[in-house]
Amino acid sequence: MKSGDSTTIEVAEPSSSSKGKATVLVAPKATGWKKGVAIIDFVLRLGAIVAALSAAATMGTSDESLPFFTQFFQFEASYDDMPTFQFFLIAMALVSGYLVLSIPFSIVAIVRPHASGLKLFLLIMDTVALTLATSAAAAAAAIVYLAHNGNSSSNWLAICNQFTDFCQKVSGAVVSAFVCVVVFIFLILLSALALRKH
Amino acid sequence: MKSGDSTTIEVAEPSSSSKGKATVLVAPKATGWKKGVAIIDFVLRLGAIVAALSAAATMGTSDESLPFFTQFFQFEASYDDMPTFQFFLIAMALVSGYLVLSIPFSIVAIVRPHASGLKLFLLIMDTVALTLATSAAAAAAAIVYLAHNGNSSSNWLAICNQFTDFCQKVSGAVVSAFVCVVVFIFLILLSALALRKH
Repeated sequence: MKSGDSTTIEVAEPSSSSKGKATVLVAPKATGWKKGVAIIDFVLRLGAIVAALSAAATMGTSDESLPFFTQFFQFEASYDDMPTFQFFLIAMALVSGYLVLSIPFSIVAIVRPHASGLKLFLLIMDTVALTLATSAAAAAAAIVYLAHNGNSSSNWLAICNQFTDFCQKVSGAVVSAFVCVVVFIFLILLSALALRKH
Repeated sequence: MKSGDSTTIEVAEPSSSSKGKATVLVAPKATGWKKGVAIIDFVLRLGAIVAALSAAATMGTSDESLPFFTQFFQFEASYDDMPTFQFFLIAMALVSGYLVLSIPFSIVAIVRPHASGLKLFLLIMDTVALTLATSAAAAAAAIVYLAHNGNSSSNWLAICNQFTDFCQKVSGAVVSAFVCVVVFIFLILLSALALRKH
């Protein structure tokens, strides 16, 4: 009876009815598959929160005072000295905040695997957060590279010879931010896979 | 006869059959809407090519020699001097190449608006290209900011007082790269909208 129905529709509207038939036949399997994707999305989101928070925290606590000073000046390096590192801290804090706020939506997506509007919303917000995290990580990486190597053409000297601890902390924060970026790419890939028709 | 069919399936499998019915009924309208989205995608892609190519070309042609020189040294600034600007040039060239190669896929998506595998592929590749373009633009922006303003804590002096033309060209390239990034975000948004079930 059921397959006979499908054939009747197929004659009337060939291209879409075959899709309709497929949906009817594989619906329970598709739901399970989408639930699995939603759970992976949730776990990845937790990982992204850890990466983003540790990046922000490492950058925020990075300051170093050298053990020698003159009468007028103490040698000290902190993220405050560089506008790029300030931007990094703000951007990673924003990304962490967004990720924490997105956790409830991710849980709703596990409970209701067919809510495509929710997935679309998360995908778009993830794309914006990806852009923010990438720009923060890349800008900080450019400055960290300069701090490590300097640049002879423009006469900018490497400062990591003096501020070793500061440079290590900042480099760690940049690596953590790039981990966050990679997790975001996987999150977008998963959302896109789950949005696709089956 | 047709609506009777749908009702029969509805009894058997309530949630998915209503979707199957909707597909059959609104198929022509949905196709037109998806074709429109695909055409906008194509136009945006052309705009992104222009932005990416002009960013790469502006950066590639940015060098300036100062009109005075000593016996051993001529003062010259070029993108070659900064590893970050070299990365910018390579990344924007890669993004331009990807965009040109994606044009045929975009045209196929106009001709066949229901090819969701193609849209998924473009969305994933667009996400990777977005990350590449954003990192290049942000890293170059950090260095350009430093060239304009310098940094007193680390004793890096602003070089834009001397190399005015160079700095203007490089700043233009960064702005162009960010335009490309914004277009990519819209491309991903459109692909996600088109992937969504209706």
